Amino acid sequence: MVKYVYTFNEGNKDMKDLLGGKGANLAEMTNLGLPVPPGFTISTEACNTYLQEGAVPETLTTEVTKALRSVEDKLGRKLGDAEDPLLVSVRSGAKFSMPGMMETVLNIGLNDESVKGLATVSEDERFAWDSYRRLIQMFGKTVMDIEGDGFADALEALKEEKGVHYDHELSADDLKGLVATFKSIVKEETGREFPQDPREQMDLGIEAVFRSWNTERAKIYRRRERIPESLGTAVNVQTMVFGNMGDTSGTGVCFTRDPSTGHSGVYGDYLMNAQGEDVVAGIRNTEPLKALERENAEVYKQLVGIMRKLETHYLDLCDIEFTIERGKLWMLQTRIGKRTAGAAFRVATQLVEEKLITKDEMLQRVTGEQLTQLMFPQFDTNAKRVKLGAGMAASPGAAVGGIAFNNEQARAAIEAGEKCILVRRETNPDDLPGMVDSEGVLTARGGKTSHAAVVARGMGKTCVCGAEALIIDEEAGTLTVDGRVLKQGDIIAIDGASGEIFEGDIPVTESPVTIFLTKGLEAGLEACNGDQEMIELVQAVDQIMNYADSRRRLKVRTNADTPEDAARAMEFGAQGIGLCRTEHMFLGERRPLVEKVILSEVGSSEREEAIAELGKLQRSDFLSMLEVLDGKPMTVRLIDPPLHEFLPDLTSLEVKVAVAKATGEPDPSDLKMLEAVRRMHESNPMLGLRGVRLGLYMRGLFTMQIRALISAACELKAAGKDPQPEVMVPLVGSVRELQIIRDDAEAIIAEEKEKAGVDLDVPIGCMVELPRAAMTAEDLAREADFFSFGTNDLTQTTWGFSRDDCEGVFFPNYIEEGIFGVSPFETLDVHGVGRVVNEGVQRGRSTKPGMKMGVCGEHGGDPESIHFFDEINVDYVSCSPFRVPVARLEAGRATTEPQDATK
Amino acid sequence: MVKYVYTFNEGNKDMKDLLGGKGANLAEMTNLGLPVPPGFTISTEACNTYLQEGAVPETLTTEVTKALRSVEDKLGRKLGDAEDPLLVSVRSGAKFSMPGMMETVLNIGLNDESVKGLATVSEDERFAWDSYRRLIQMFGKTVMDIEGDGFADALEALKEEKGVHYDHELSADDLKGLVATFKSIVKEETGREFPQDPREQMDLGIEAVFRSWNTERAKIYRRRERIPESLGTAVNVQTMVFGNMGDTSGTGVCFTRDPSTGHSGVYGDYLMNAQGEDVVAGIRNTEPLKALERENAEVYKQLVGIMRKLETHYLDLCDIEFTIERGKLWMLQTRIGKRTAGAAFRVATQLVEEKLITKDEMLQRVTGEQLTQLMFPQFDTNAKRVKLGAGMAASPGAAVGGIAFNNEQARAAIEAGEKCILVRRETNPDDLPGMVDSEGVLTARGGKTSHAAVVARGMGKTCVCGAEALIIDEEAGTLTVDGRVLKQGDIIAIDGASGEIFEGDIPVTESPVTIFLTKGLEAGLEACNGDQEMIELVQAVDQIMNYADSRRRLKVRTNADTPEDAARAMEFGAQGIGLCRTEHMFLGERRPLVEKVILSEVGSSEREEAIAELGKLQRSDFLSMLEVLDGKPMTVRLIDPPLHEFLPDLTSLEVKVAVAKATGEPDPSDLKMLEAVRRMHESNPMLGLRGVRLGLYMRGLFTMQIRALISAACELKAAGKDPQPEVMVPLVGSVRELQIIRDDAEAIIAEEKEKAGVDLDVPIGCMVELPRAAMTAEDLAREADFFSFGTNDLTQTTWGFSRDDCEGVFFPNYIEEGIFGVSPFETLDVHGVGRVVNEGVQRGRSTKPGMKMGVCGEHGGDPESIHFFDEINVDYVSCSPFRVPVARLEAGRATTEPQDATK
Repeated sequence: MVKYVYTFNEGNKDMKDLLGGKGANLAEMTNLGLPVPPGFTISTEACNTYLQEGAVPETLTTEVTKALRSVEDKLGRKLGDAEDPLLVSVRSGAKFSMPGMMETVLNIGLNDESVKGLATVSEDERFAWDSYRRLIQMFGKTVMDIEGDGFADALEALKEEKGVHYDHELSADDLKGLVATFKSIVKEETGREFPQDPREQMDLGIEAVFRSWNTERAKIYRRRERIPESLGTAVNVQTMVFGNMGDTSGTGVCFTRDPSTGHSGVYGDYLMNAQGEDVVAGIRNTEPLKALERENAEVYKQLVGIMRKLETHYLDLCDIEFTIERGKLWMLQTRIGKRTAGAAFRVATQLVEEKLITKDEMLQRVTGEQLTQLMFPQFDTNAKRVKLGAGMAASPGAAVGGIAFNNEQARAAIEAGEKCILVRRETNPDDLPGMVDSEGVLTARGGKTSHAAVVARGMGKTCVCGAEALIIDEEAGTLTVDGRVLKQGDIIAIDGASGEIFEGDIPVTESPVTIFLTKGLEAGLEACNGDQEMIELVQAVDQIMNYADSRRRLKVRTNADTPEDAARAMEFGAQGIGLCRTEHMFLGERRPLVEKVILSEVGSSEREEAIAELGKLQRSDFLSMLEVLDGKPMTVRLIDPPLHEFLPDLTSLEVKVAVAKATGEPDPSDLKMLEAVRRMHESNPMLGLRGVRLGLYMRGLFTMQIRALISAACELKAAGKDPQPEVMVPLVGSVRELQIIRDDAEAIIAEEKEKAGVDLDVPIGCMVELPRAAMTAEDLAREADFFSFGTNDLTQTTWGFSRDDCEGVFFPNYIEEGIFGVSPFETLDVHGVGRVVNEGVQRGRSTKPGMKMGVCGEHGGDPESIHFFDEINVDYVSCSPFRVPVARLEAGRATTEPQDATK
Repeated sequence: MVKYVYTFNEGNKDMKDLLGGKGANLAEMTNLGLPVPPGFTISTEACNTYLQEGAVPETLTTEVTKALRSVEDKLGRKLGDAEDPLLVSVRSGAKFSMPGMMETVLNIGLNDESVKGLATVSEDERFAWDSYRRLIQMFGKTVMDIEGDGFADALEALKEEKGVHYDHELSADDLKGLVATFKSIVKEETGREFPQDPREQMDLGIEAVFRSWNTERAKIYRRRERIPESLGTAVNVQTMVFGNMGDTSGTGVCFTRDPSTGHSGVYGDYLMNAQGEDVVAGIRNTEPLKALERENAEVYKQLVGIMRKLETHYLDLCDIEFTIERGKLWMLQTRIGKRTAGAAFRVATQLVEEKLITKDEMLQRVTGEQLTQLMFPQFDTNAKRVKLGAGMAASPGAAVGGIAFNNEQARAAIEAGEKCILVRRETNPDDLPGMVDSEGVLTARGGKTSHAAVVARGMGKTCVCGAEALIIDEEAGTLTVDGRVLKQGDIIAIDGASGEIFEGDIPVTESPVTIFLTKGLEAGLEACNGDQEMIELVQAVDQIMNYADSRRRLKVRTNADTPEDAARAMEFGAQGIGLCRTEHMFLGERRPLVEKVILSEVGSSEREEAIAELGKLQRSDFLSMLEVLDGKPMTVRLIDPPLHEFLPDLTSLEVKVAVAKATGEPDPSDLKMLEAVRRMHESNPMLGLRGVRLGLYMRGLFTMQIRALISAACELKAAGKDPQPEVMVPLVGSVRELQIIRDDAEAIIAEEKEKAGVDLDVPIGCMVELPRAAMTAEDLAREADFFSFGTNDLTQTTWGFSRDDCEGVFFPNYIEEGIFGVSPFETLDVHGVGRVVNEGVQRGRSTKPGMKMGVCGEHGGDPESIHFFDEINVDYVSCSPFRVPVARLEAGRATTEPQDATK
């Protein structure tokens, strides 16, 4: 039989799946002997069963009875007893915090009789009746689904009648009257009496919490925060304690250390004679925790002791809620405290310094995503800021530009040489061009998985979404917020890390963390300009990165096509180039030469000359790249895209020629070009003549590139340098393709070495980016010295969808529907594509044990994916220069926690 | 140590890999005690070693010595002995016959001394010197690489000088002189004397045969015939026997039964006092074998006995070469005789009737490809035919049309409503449009793997290629053959089964075999018009198909989208529809309705109405299909292609609008359409918004289709019929996609059943056509009642190439380079895509043992692929109606030979 109910001394902090976060930690504190008001937790399983079957499982009812009795016995009081009533709260508590999303009912156990008992026992009639009216109000709304403002209106009317301003100015008799009014509202709205049976109150409260898992707002929140629907919520039933029982009572929140610096100490606030909601409502100003020492030295000392105990127990910054009821301290909640990215690094190193955690644990306290946030350029903190509002931080960065309300305005801005921010109520696939043209995207609707957020992250654009206070009127061309009206072109600034929106231009400065990562500690500290918090942060990042580097097994390379990118990546700590895309060297002023290669006849001297000319240019490209890389490996991928990508677009050219024909004479060179473009047109270029297929079709292209690379390397080697070129063949599907190219390459390498009189070891490998390559990798390994998994293409072919055509179109919908957790182009789809990668690794190494394996898709810079690559024993990941530090950190973290650590 | 040499009594017929076809059968005959001139075979391994190392392996030389001595001892004569010389032939003999492609040297052992001994022993001086000059001539050309016509010229000059017409009119002295001349030619051309050492002659001869494996023509032949390069040739060294030693000698060829009817009997031809080459050269007319009985009753009786013995041993039609030397019969070769497709069926059933083979063996004697050849429409045999020439039979069928020399002419023919045949020297990717527009393709160059052949087979077009006698002058617009000149538009006819080319129109008639397969035995026999051969053929096909059906485990369904196709397929024996493509129902006059669905706004009443209207039409489609299928399952695939396929082409529309703008006012409806087409344009539609993604994006489309199907089925069920619809979801990559659609479908099915008051079981399954689907099939199986492997798309995604963009472009080159044996769209790539399919089967059944699995890609009709599907325990294949009989036959064959039987 399934056990649904756990008293607080039956659970522990590791049972979050079953008891939710709140319940697990209440249990943990109970077991630690801390003063926790007794209670029990109903498991998430009970919730799921209820939601599936639409009824409370029978055994749950009996288990609740037993748990309730054990609480009653412990306290010697009974729920809703007429003389000395036990009151309880019924609260939701899911595995992941969902603040304000689900229901809570307090003061359960009060009825027309027990309210009098409470008055007697508390010696406070006013308090007793106020508690009762609060119960009816909360219960009415939450459990009995009474909509509208009937209760609040009645309360207001009463205050008006009595000529008072605050609730606490109402007398006990006033409140007695209000209870009567509230009860008649209940009767009127629901046709039923407010239930007087305490147990019925409790049972209905529990069901209401279960149901609140499935409210629309809760669902939306979960989608935004990527919390699985299947978790369900636990329900905590706990004895009520009151911080509002006079001046010896109170309530507060505290942290075991400074959440932004990590420094140990006493941080928090409290308020005497108040309940939790009063602190939140901000009616009265809270006192700093230190002041409690004067108020009640005994309780203060006890609390500080508990804080220390909790921190030593949890070994992390704890966030604590407490209540003092008539001088007695009660612990209501604790959890690992949330913190900013910067605080995470500082807290982690602080805890190491205090010898509370090991360095391995330190790595677990920070994430690559946090490091990314610290690396983004930031708005100059000294600059004047006019904050307009805030939305959700959906894609990091700091973007400044003029408002553009649609694609056309964004295009116009680009064409005028101005930066813009695309501002829309929400985005859909039609807005893609505008997103491409803008610096960042700001929307009024939608969460972290909305179209705008998903697509912006994919593009690496700054995005703030769901800024609900914005009123966007595209037709009128206005953005109104808080009464302020902005127009197209007005400059705004958005902070993708904080979600803030500012008016006007704000200078953007490079982050001292980034300066440290590229230029070293001294430069990084200097860039802090004496800001002590920032200095501590840079030192913390230094310490953590050093340790991550010392721990990691995965090497980190970079994807770079220019000497500048390569140099930048080396500064960021890259250990070589994992992917140098040679086709990027075919652009710009070289385009006419490339056109000549494509358009001239096979074997013609024209083509041969053009190829030879290109070869010279590529040789000088490789020369400068290899010089930057000196002593580090550089994997050069032979040309990959279809050749027609270097020719004009078919549709534009057809239009140009047709219009010219309709109005006069078309340019003969256009006609000739059109013929070629038509001939080479492909319906699905991604699945066309590219990669090794192109190399075999136009053999001279690959051999030109190989010769340029090897000849450049030989020159450097002869000059005493240490070039380490590696030749990589793209889009291989069959070992025979690779074999033919390998034979060509080996001949060229031998010739060039002979010519230069040097010795040079040049590994020849291939991309594994087609399912067939992975599924026949034991064959490929016979001809390949290394594999590099191209996880972008592999994701495309394994799923059969292209990033360009799909990510902006239906991915947001897929994420909403729970088909993806996140775009498989952002984080590797471990379950599907990951299996294919693993097949490639296993099969390859079955032929060549210890064969070198790398990853050069964009997943090489994604934290979760890096952990997977570490797990399947890939040797290195290669990512964009800016992601290199993230990859180093995550590679280090992966070794300290072999199981998937990021979830 | 490797054994390289096998005397004839060491081998047997199953050693073809090692001894080649000829050597293995010589050994078999020797072991049967037949009179085979003694000799030995040098293995293919020896050849491969020689070709790799460039030198004869040392142990080969010593093994040859031993084998030669054993032959010499057996005959009591010595190689090249001056008194009574043993002479030998050195012949190539690969695993697969490559007629005329490799070298042969006869009469080895003759030199200036032994020629005299031969003259004495044979009592025929002329014969001895003629044999010697033949040796020098053959050896000079083959072994000593003397090019040009020196020998033939000298022979001609001598005949002229002597005033004679035929070789045999030259006297012994004339030939003596000719030998001297030939020897001086050798000396002149090579600087070396013709070798007098018999063993040296033999050794050099063996090496020459090895080398001949790699001549250009042999390589080209192998590529054409898809014979692997790696096989190598064996070398047979055999005692010479002479059919030209006077009137009691002779040579001939015979068959153990009629190669076209299969009837048992004595079939063959012979020629007295002649050598094999004389028979081939056709200088004298051969005699029918029967005549030999009068010539030499003893030998005739012996030969007939041997024929019977061989057939009983090989249990098949044998093709035999024999020589009679001075009244003694010698067997020189035997092999399983080649036959036409029709003969194969007739021979197979004849052998069963004679109780020589079992019915299982009968199935192994015929192939699906042969059946296809019999099914194609044929040129009316009674019609007048003017044969122009012949090429290779590259893709079957009978095509008639006017000559078109290029794309433009083919297009012009189409536009004039005329049929055409594309005639080109050879084709390349630029010729694709012309190939599409024509009835068939005829080329002068290239073999069965040339561009024309590969692409035509892919398109199902008739093709004759490599008709070398054609002279094609595109510029002049002429096709010249044998002096006859044809022009553009002149009607020609090509027979893709025989390779023949005819002038003028020839009526095409349906094959009686096809009539039998669709209309039954009686109709088939009637269609034979009394042609006895044809009647026997139809009866043979009947017998074999019946047996195949009784044996096969695989069910055969069809891919059909119209009631006509469905009915046709049922006639061909299909057991249901495996793939009904619903999008084909969206074309034609329904297009405006489809446009309305696409272009109207989501949720608008306009769209709802258009969808409802489409639903009505689809319902009537399904109604008529299900009526045809009554009692058989019909798998309906929900709409698969991207919606923009139903809209006008982007480029054409851009051109239209731009031209209209440049010259006046564009049509507003064009502008509106252009906007939509632009918005929906995809760079890679194959990887875009299609299949289940589209179904989830525009939910109403799928539900409309499901409702139309189920509602139609319910109507029939209520009327007492037995509709068996199955819902199939395309392009599923993740179980969640399927789950959502399944939930929708189940709700609709329940509703419609309820409405009609009938019970109906509707399986819901999915296509497995993405690698991810196969690799996560254990998840999909939770929500799928069946899988259908879409091997076309699976081939595309596993290899990452599209059929449209690649098959006509680089596949021929890939086949030449040995990357493919055959296009993976024709025959399943078992090693790569097959592994993925197998993953899908295994993983799916790991969740649901016995889960129904089908194949609905075009591979479902390909013989080799069918054997693989049988092996991995797929339940059914589905193919185009015309391939249904082929699939039935091959499915039967697969069960009788579990290992890959078609190679």
